[in-house]
Amino acid sequence: MHKILIINGPNLNLLGKRQNDIYGNMSFEDYLATLREKYEIIDIQYFQSNKEGELVDHIQSANSDFDGIILNAAGYSHTSIAIADAIQAIDIPVVEVHISNVYAREEYRHHSYLSAHCKGVIVGFGLAGYQLAVESLIA
Amino acid sequence: MHKILIINGPNLNLLGKRQNDIYGNMSFEDYLATLREKYEIIDIQYFQSNKEGELVDHIQSANSDFDGIILNAAGYSHTSIAIADAIQAIDIPVVEVHISNVYAREEYRHHSYLSAHCKGVIVGFGLAGYQLAVESLIA
Amino acid sequence: MHKILIINGPNLNLLGKRQNDIYGNMSFEDYLATLREKYEIIDIQYFQSNKEGELVDHIQSANSDFDGIILNAAGYSHTSIAIADAIQAIDIPVVEVHISNVYAREEYRHHSYLSAHCKGVIVGFGLAGYQLAVESLIA
Amino acid sequence: MHKILIINGPNLNLLGKRQNDIYGNMSFEDYLATLREKYEIIDIQYFQSNKEGELVDHIQSANSDFDGIILNAAGYSHTSIAIADAIQAIDIPVVEVHISNVYAREEYRHHSYLSAHCKGVIVGFGLAGYQLAVESLIA
Amino acid sequence: MHKILIINGPNLNLLGKRQNDIYGNMSFEDYLATLREKYEIIDIQYFQSNKEGELVDHIQSANSDFDGIILNAAGYSHTSIAIADAIQAIDIPVVEVHISNVYAREEYRHHSYLSAHCKGVIVGFGLAGYQLAVESLIA
Amino acid sequence: MHKILIINGPNLNLLGKRQNDIYGNMSFEDYLATLREKYEIIDIQYFQSNKEGELVDHIQSANSDFDGIILNAAGYSHTSIAIADAIQAIDIPVVEVHISNVYAREEYRHHSYLSAHCKGVIVGFGLAGYQLAVESLIA
Amino acid sequence: MHKILIINGPNLNLLGKRQNDIYGNMSFEDYLATLREKYEIIDIQYFQSNKEGELVDHIQSANSDFDGIILNAAGYSHTSIAIADAIQAIDIPVVEVHISNVYAREEYRHHSYLSAHCKGVIVGFGLAGYQLAVESLIA
Amino acid sequence: MHKILIINGPNLNLLGKRQNDIYGNMSFEDYLATLREKYEIIDIQYFQSNKEGELVDHIQSANSDFDGIILNAAGYSHTSIAIADAIQAIDIPVVEVHISNVYAREEYRHHSYLSAHCKGVIVGFGLAGYQLAVESLIA
Amino acid sequence: MHKILIINGPNLNLLGKRQNDIYGNMSFEDYLATLREKYEIIDIQYFQSNKEGELVDHIQSANSDFDGIILNAAGYSHTSIAIADAIQAIDIPVVEVHISNVYAREEYRHHSYLSAHCKGVIVGFGLAGYQLAVESLIA
Amino acid sequence: MHKILIINGPNLNLLGKRQNDIYGNMSFEDYLATLREKYEIIDIQYFQSNKEGELVDHIQSANSDFDGIILNAAGYSHTSIAIADAIQAIDIPVVEVHISNVYAREEYRHHSYLSAHCKGVIVGFGLAGYQLAVESLIA
Amino acid sequence: MHKILIINGPNLNLLGKRQNDIYGNMSFEDYLATLREKYEIIDIQYFQSNKEGELVDHIQSANSDFDGIILNAAGYSHTSIAIADAIQAIDIPVVEVHISNVYAREEYRHHSYLSAHCKGVIVGFGLAGYQLAVESLIA
Amino acid sequence: MHKILIINGPNLNLLGKRQNDIYGNMSFEDYLATLREKYEIIDIQYFQSNKEGELVDHIQSANSDFDGIILNAAGYSHTSIAIADAIQAIDIPVVEVHISNVYAREEYRHHSYLSAHCKGVIVGFGLAGYQLAVESLIA
Repeated sequence: MHKILIINGPNLNLLGKRQNDIYGNMSFEDYLATLREKYEIIDIQYFQSNKEGELVDHIQSANSDFDGIILNAAGYSHTSIAIADAIQAIDIPVVEVHISNVYAREEYRHHSYLSAHCKGVIVGFGLAGYQLAVESLIA
Repeated sequence: MHKILIINGPNLNLLGKRQNDIYGNMSFEDYLATLREKYEIIDIQYFQSNKEGELVDHIQSANSDFDGIILNAAGYSHTSIAIADAIQAIDIPVVEVHISNVYAREEYRHHSYLSAHCKGVIVGFGLAGYQLAVESLIA
Repeated sequence: MHKILIINGPNLNLLGKRQNDIYGNMSFEDYLATLREKYEIIDIQYFQSNKEGELVDHIQSANSDFDGIILNAAGYSHTSIAIADAIQAIDIPVVEVHISNVYAREEYRHHSYLSAHCKGVIVGFGLAGYQLAVESLIA
Repeated sequence: MHKILIINGPNLNLLGKRQNDIYGNMSFEDYLATLREKYEIIDIQYFQSNKEGELVDHIQSANSDFDGIILNAAGYSHTSIAIADAIQAIDIPVVEVHISNVYAREEYRHHSYLSAHCKGVIVGFGLAGYQLAVESLIA
Repeated sequence: MHKILIINGPNLNLLGKRQNDIYGNMSFEDYLATLREKYEIIDIQYFQSNKEGELVDHIQSANSDFDGIILNAAGYSHTSIAIADAIQAIDIPVVEVHISNVYAREEYRHHSYLSAHCKGVIVGFGLAGYQLAVESLIA
Repeated sequence: MHKILIINGPNLNLLGKRQNDIYGNMSFEDYLATLREKYEIIDIQYFQSNKEGELVDHIQSANSDFDGIILNAAGYSHTSIAIADAIQAIDIPVVEVHISNVYAREEYRHHSYLSAHCKGVIVGFGLAGYQLAVESLIA
Repeated sequence: MHKILIINGPNLNLLGKRQNDIYGNMSFEDYLATLREKYEIIDIQYFQSNKEGELVDHIQSANSDFDGIILNAAGYSHTSIAIADAIQAIDIPVVEVHISNVYAREEYRHHSYLSAHCKGVIVGFGLAGYQLAVESLIA
Repeated sequence: MHKILIINGPNLNLLGKRQNDIYGNMSFEDYLATLREKYEIIDIQYFQSNKEGELVDHIQSANSDFDGIILNAAGYSHTSIAIADAIQAIDIPVVEVHISNVYAREEYRHHSYLSAHCKGVIVGFGLAGYQLAVESLIA
Repeated sequence: MHKILIINGPNLNLLGKRQNDIYGNMSFEDYLATLREKYEIIDIQYFQSNKEGELVDHIQSANSDFDGIILNAAGYSHTSIAIADAIQAIDIPVVEVHISNVYAREEYRHHSYLSAHCKGVIVGFGLAGYQLAVESLIA
Repeated sequence: MHKILIINGPNLNLLGKRQNDIYGNMSFEDYLATLREKYEIIDIQYFQSNKEGELVDHIQSANSDFDGIILNAAGYSHTSIAIADAIQAIDIPVVEVHISNVYAREEYRHHSYLSAHCKGVIVGFGLAGYQLAVESLIA
Repeated sequence: MHKILIINGPNLNLLGKRQNDIYGNMSFEDYLATLREKYEIIDIQYFQSNKEGELVDHIQSANSDFDGIILNAAGYSHTSIAIADAIQAIDIPVVEVHISNVYAREEYRHHSYLSAHCKGVIVGFGLAGYQLAVESLIA
Repeated sequence: MHKILIINGPNLNLLGKRQNDIYGNMSFEDYLATLREKYEIIDIQYFQSNKEGELVDHIQSANSDFDGIILNAAGYSHTSIAIADAIQAIDIPVVEVHISNVYAREEYRHHSYLSAHCKGVIVGFGLAGYQLAVESLIA
């Protein structure tokens, strides 16, 4: 597990700037810095996009460049068969992360098209969920 | 209410060119001209895209540049949690507009993920709905 | 558009007196006065009833005396096929108004039997929704 | 029927490279060459994208340049009202193709928003489905 | 079977005046005259109301004065448990009539709370359905 | 209306022999005799079968030989799209009859695929329903 | 708790006269006499109507004249959002009572729109349920 | 009615210690003391368990030792057919009690398997509901 | 692929005679002649029946006599598990054909029990669908 | 219990020839021979048909000739109200048998219209289920 | 098949004592004696509990001590995934038995979580079902 | 975070002994040893039970003795409101763990009553999920 790609989906570029009661008040860039510091020997790359198709593109291309993906597809988790198909089509493990406890929010957030095709799912631990995901990929 | 952004979603670039029985035969650009004339003191900007992710981008960035958004997300209204999350994440009011009476059409057009997070909803008045939306933002 | 009938349904006689957090604290009579002042050349009549059948009666009889109806059927919007049938049976346009954003409240308020048969629907703008409805009828 | 546009949706750029048990092991580019050879007098163009909005764009613009569209929207078939609306908005016939037998897979692949607006649907014949679609457009 | 009460529900006072394509163009009063002429020896009384509660009142009180009821509750058929309970509470037979073929119209007209408690149901024969109902009560 | 075909579906050959509490204790043949006596000038033919396909056959062929059909498809009413399609495919009117009040029995008897395509529906009057059906065809 | 209003809904004027197996054979007036005797120091008023709108009216107006309401809305309990909204709009406590055990009857009697907005619910104890309701208001 | 058994289900041993906003801050033991004081001549026994099977055991054995049961099965009310069957199997009356207004909480608390088999149901009156239940058994 | 059996289900014997707007105005026999002419070297046999059981019989027996089946089970497609089981039980490929676009018609035509067990499905191309099916079997 | 009729439904004529992994590899005729040998004093007759209507016919006529029926209606179990009605209409006991464990297969095989009207149901024991059914009839 | 464990679930300790119309009037202990007499060479053990967890315990531990289990989990059949998982986890065959015909009772008794994981299911033959189960295990 | 209680639910005592393809082949006791070794300074206690009520008991009592709970309620996760209520009633954080990817298994394993009340959820990482849970509690 030398190279990991973290992919964040729609509206997660606003982390730390809005809805802090739900998502906390640290930007993902700041969090990423601490994460990289902690896992020095792993090359952790990061990609964020609000566009479903770009998430599909990056999941596909990560297959040849990375050893694993940590994916928080946010709102697309609940509506995107295209992303689920991309996960199915690649060989490297994908870990699904959600920052908030989606099961304690609106009912339409309780189902993810992605989960069945991921190695595992980590929900509700705030940004710490990404670190747990790294741990799960190393393990 | 000095600056308003009108955002139109997928296929609304065809307004006035196709399905005139449902959407009328005036292009949005022509309608926009009459709207700007009527509300001279307001700066009305316009953006159209067929791409869900670009709608998310523009809703997010409008937050710092505009006082309100008029949003007709067309087909994405019924399927996009990503756009709904973007509306939730910003501070300025969003008014949802539909040109046709969606409640008199296919059942899958009766539900919008966006409505619960908008200031209000205006449905069925043709292009005049946009003017009503401007009025509602001024009021 | 010389004569408009505004019809309010059950519990809207309490406007301004109860549940002010949802419905505001102005009585409809006071609001009506400002509305009439604003649209001097239009004869705006008003009828309120808590009884489904009386709403049906007044929608029917308005057909020969008015040029349009603004209808807030409140709780009956979600349960009354009888009122929906009355709207279908008349020739003048009916605009459906809801003061609160019904899509952000209980699920049983998300569906209205009336909408499909109305000219248009205006939801969530408080009492200002009635003025927008007048505008929509004038347009 | 002089010009036909084949549009493939998300993850179909991986044809022949992954999940060969489901999709076979020929790339679409190779298949396209044999198809063009077979139908020399028809100008067959090809477009693939993982982005819903770009599929909408190309369906719209094909209207003036092509005589028919063969569309395999893959995962978006089951979730995209925006693409369905684009098909409804154009004049040239669209034939929906699925390579695998979607009815023998997950339940969420059994419904397509697109089918009702297409000229016809061809499911389960592998890549040969595209040739059948060409035949159906010629007929 | 000496005395029969015909009860018509909401909007049926408009029979012959509106939506003639669905309901025909004869008023119920005119039809009633021909019906009485045909069944001279039967005392046929008639009551129409747009009010659910008045229908309940008249069904209850008919119990002591009539030998049978012919009931077309129109829109209330599909929503009124109160009327269904009134039918259950009385001893004389009630025949349910619908002028149009409700099974060929909107889905919400396919279910009637009343049917299970009526002697029988007659649907789709236009005004002639009332005569069939008289026949069924005589038989 | 010179020639009418009465078609009875599965298990109705047992009328008068079994489940008399539901269906009465007169055989259909005996009832038919009284019916023919009453309507001397009409040629009333009768066909019964337990086989769905034979019902389809007879509905089709009746089209050229009869002026109307009275159809009690019994158990097939609730499950047969094939019979519904046959009714749609012919020109002469079909009246649907049910002897018992199906709305007061198991839920699966509340829906009939046939009703939407019939001229009318008569439910719950016992064998007398067939006479009402004759009347409705004469009218 | 000096003044209590008991409101009974549709068909409860028949108590003691019909369906005695379900509702017992004492009229409500007789029961009321025994209740008043038992609670001499409380002013117990009574209102019954078969009309939904009148129930709404009396719930509203009771707010200023009574200290609590005991409401048996009968059939309207399961269909009336208008009554539920009236309960929500007032300040005094409302206790919902059902004479029969509605959970042991038709499924459509298992849900009440009113319950969520009442202080409490008492079901299945016959007329004694009203006394329990008085007790609950005193407590 | 000489001997009554009160049975409380899972987590009700925490009454008065946790979630006081929902359940109040008196322990059931303290409440029981006041109840016994009030109904001196009745022998009121009490059993609490977090185990579904023990609730079944005690309901069964109470049949020979008690004259009635007051049962608050808490979370098991909504999931236990085993307890419902036990209630059906015994002769003495069971009164179902819920402390909070379950109809104003999560949807999965709106249905109880037990209610149809109980003498009556008392919901939402806090601990006072148990006293009402005693009253209902005495009555 | 030397011998192909075409099996048509209920009401398809009326092709070209009725509902020409949906099914066209050529009889299947005439179409079959052109098809045989086109595929001279293939022995194309034809069977039509309105009876579900006969369709099962012929699917079973075709297994030893034919190389493939083209099946349009019409109304039985949506209701027959028996036919689906027959398809599952044989070895030769079955291609499902529908003349009209069933996805643009009543909802009950959108699901076919047969599709999951067929080699492929061809929908909406009119009679030309049968030729496409022959092509798909040859390919 | 002198005479028993075993009725097998659609596709069970293929037993032992196809899908041996599900249904085993013994033909029913061979199995029947062993069964008759075991129960020499019972006259065991056998009927198989792929036609729903013929199953209805034989169930009806068995009533006067046999003491009991063992019925495996295969695919029709899940779709045939006509067969269910035939079972209800006769006096002799019917035992429903399924060879495979239908509850471990497709969801549409989990419900049988027949079960509620049979004496009992035996599922999943292979051909041995028929012998258990004979035992159950003897007992 | 030397040792068989019969496990009965909740309320089956009351067999023969209560609800005799449904379950008969023989206690299971008495029935067991006759069963053991009949199958002398088999060691038949018996366990009954009202506790879901104890059923899980005994199913698990039976795995090493018995050759097969006969399980009537009564009310837990319809609600217990834990018991279903226990059946899945062991190697010896489990036969599911229900004394009454659960398909002719409440809808919530029609589904069993256990059936899919059992060798077979025997329903509706009263206590004789246990003997059939022994036979099925011997076979 | 000095003391953590790990609670495992039904059938997890079989870990490493059965269904190794799903759950792996290490017993939980062995895994626990490695876990304790890794987190020497934390006191990790362990409790397993097949009984729902005992899980409730231990969750309640852990509140005063532990700093956090790691809970794998296995089959009860999907059916137990009682356990969910226990989690709600205590103050210390609970982390929900599932060893297998429940989202890739039967649909009834996709919903957990517990998740909404837990701090977070970890699914699909095998036994390693417990270590991640410890990490999440430390963090």
